[in-house]
Amino acid sequence: MKGVILGIHPTAQIIDITHDIQAQNVRLAALALRDSARYFAAGTIFVVVVDPGVGGERRPIAAQSGDYVFVAPDNGVLSYAIEDLAAATLVELTSTQHRLEPVSYTFHGRDIFAPAAAHLAAGVPIDQLGPRAADPVVLPQPTLTVAAGRLVGEVVQIDHFGNIVTSIGPLRWTKPDEAIYLRIGSEHGLGVPISATDAQITIDGQTINGIIRAYGAVARGTLLATIGSSGYLEVAINQGGAAARLDAAIGDMVELYTGVN
Amino acid sequence: MKGVILGIHPTAQIIDITHDIQAQNVRLAALALRDSARYFAAGTIFVVVVDPGVGGERRPIAAQSGDYVFVAPDNGVLSYAIEDLAAATLVELTSTQHRLEPVSYTFHGRDIFAPAAAHLAAGVPIDQLGPRAADPVVLPQPTLTVAAGRLVGEVVQIDHFGNIVTSIGPLRWTKPDEAIYLRIGSEHGLGVPISATDAQITIDGQTINGIIRAYGAVARGTLLATIGSSGYLEVAINQGGAAARLDAAIGDMVELYTGVN
Amino acid sequence: MKGVILGIHPTAQIIDITHDIQAQNVRLAALALRDSARYFAAGTIFVVVVDPGVGGERRPIAAQSGDYVFVAPDNGVLSYAIEDLAAATLVELTSTQHRLEPVSYTFHGRDIFAPAAAHLAAGVPIDQLGPRAADPVVLPQPTLTVAAGRLVGEVVQIDHFGNIVTSIGPLRWTKPDEAIYLRIGSEHGLGVPISATDAQITIDGQTINGIIRAYGAVARGTLLATIGSSGYLEVAINQGGAAARLDAAIGDMVELYTGVN
Repeated sequence: MKGVILGIHPTAQIIDITHDIQAQNVRLAALALRDSARYFAAGTIFVVVVDPGVGGERRPIAAQSGDYVFVAPDNGVLSYAIEDLAAATLVELTSTQHRLEPVSYTFHGRDIFAPAAAHLAAGVPIDQLGPRAADPVVLPQPTLTVAAGRLVGEVVQIDHFGNIVTSIGPLRWTKPDEAIYLRIGSEHGLGVPISATDAQITIDGQTINGIIRAYGAVARGTLLATIGSSGYLEVAINQGGAAARLDAAIGDMVELYTGVN
Repeated sequence: MKGVILGIHPTAQIIDITHDIQAQNVRLAALALRDSARYFAAGTIFVVVVDPGVGGERRPIAAQSGDYVFVAPDNGVLSYAIEDLAAATLVELTSTQHRLEPVSYTFHGRDIFAPAAAHLAAGVPIDQLGPRAADPVVLPQPTLTVAAGRLVGEVVQIDHFGNIVTSIGPLRWTKPDEAIYLRIGSEHGLGVPISATDAQITIDGQTINGIIRAYGAVARGTLLATIGSSGYLEVAINQGGAAARLDAAIGDMVELYTGVN
Repeated sequence: MKGVILGIHPTAQIIDITHDIQAQNVRLAALALRDSARYFAAGTIFVVVVDPGVGGERRPIAAQSGDYVFVAPDNGVLSYAIEDLAAATLVELTSTQHRLEPVSYTFHGRDIFAPAAAHLAAGVPIDQLGPRAADPVVLPQPTLTVAAGRLVGEVVQIDHFGNIVTSIGPLRWTKPDEAIYLRIGSEHGLGVPISATDAQITIDGQTINGIIRAYGAVARGTLLATIGSSGYLEVAINQGGAAARLDAAIGDMVELYTGVN
């Protein structure tokens, strides 16, 4: 794919975000993209490839949203990086002159996605890549319910350290005291006050008291709750694997009692 | 190696093709190089390092072929990427001013191959890197026999999904119908018609009927035959490991009955 | 982290040295940095992140040494790459305008180290990143004792092939004969003659006779001593794992009898 990109656009800067997404796990890829895309400069073209599951390939699309363009299969993988995917400028990648012909049936990354991204980076307008497309596949948002004094979410990811990432967030620490505040869905969303010291988290039959800033603040082997680098509530063990100890799985319910009346 | 390259040629674009070749498996590296090199732009310099096996290091060489230059040990790793390796322009890398002195005995990639590639990329003519060399090590081509209505090849690779890659190819789908045609050895080779629906593949005592375009076309767990991204016949299981189920190994015989009289 | 760097300094050349350091193993990271940093061009900015252990984060620093600048936590990881760390120009990374605000508590690589490195690469003077810092954490140097006819060191690393890397070095082969000479601590250090053919190495109750230049010089499965790519004495098995066979561990004593009176 990189050879193809540089052949079309020799000055492209190519960065690998990750190659560690589980095969066919579109939802994990969508979450990883949500958490990293916003750190890239305006004008970045994102190329997203996930192995197709049963049912085969989805149509290839490009989606323009703000200062970014995403090139991906229409399988929902852009659902979280683009806040309203159905309202974005979508194009189906059908232009044969912006593909590598003949297109193989098993490596669309090389033959369709990489050339499209390279042409976009080189300045080709998105509408030259194909006709406008509608009705993209959109994944359901991770569960998050806000009630008085209580937030209910779910496990969305087990990372490779065995840390449990939840749908509760994004959360931000406020200074200088220990209270944190919840924002939902955007920078301008609802703020819910949470007390880091008085909060209680329940997950898989266990209760954790308080939310801490860094793993090192508790003894090795202790179960803890913290705010991950993407701003979501995480349950972890200092130098251990929380998921195995709790027998946690994607979709398990997580409750956060805010500790604020 | 990358630090050395950028120290010599600061504007180099460096792309990793793969770091996942099994140690000392020169043949796998040679196949991977054959399948990816042609997607890179004219002028690309390829650096190829494979851990040496019993017998130690081979002489380091540079090989010019068409618009590419390859820097590699003379152990056969270029046998498939360059169609006639013995006829290519070959140079032994002996120039001390284009090496990193003192040369270590265990990291020729850093001390010999990376500097040579960087100097070539910066415009040094290949003949300044050392004297012309002859009689390169050439690996035997993977077995492929063409008979009336029948092709006989072998297993050349088990990929990390457990898919079985064979020597039968390159094959290309023709449009718009389901027939595919075999080309051998080059773009201008022999065309052998194959019926995707009537073809039969036998491997390790199993028979597979038909060649399909995409894994998703069959049920999960079904054994299937398809054309891989490099154009070679592959045997796989949708979301499973074919090699383990068939107990397949490199070198096992594979037969394809074309289904065309 | 790469997205952040390119957002600040779009023409940065970014090279991954390694992502394979064991979590929280500061000493291994320090050795890897010592062995690779000197191959990079003058002006290189190194970004070093190691997962924090018990006790949490250390203050983030930048250290200027010769033509390099290192950005890292003050946990000792620069102890071996910079010969006298306490004497280097050190700055604590406190400048909020050279960070990504708000700084998360779990991903300082992205929010503190990457922005600092990008600003340095873009030409910001190191003193604009924060106040001068003193008393950096310095790791003890790996044990190496030189006596008449005998060197005593320790195991400093087990690599992913199971090779045992020791603290005895840096060593350099001399030409054209088989004698090698030991230099200690710098290019201008003490020279100790060693006979490659007559040397004896003892480690974990085993004795190895002679030091060889390349693995391939002995039969498969044979225990051997050689000089690794970084110039340190290594104990290995040709195509095998020496550490498992010897039950070797970091810190085990290694003795080298020079074989020279």
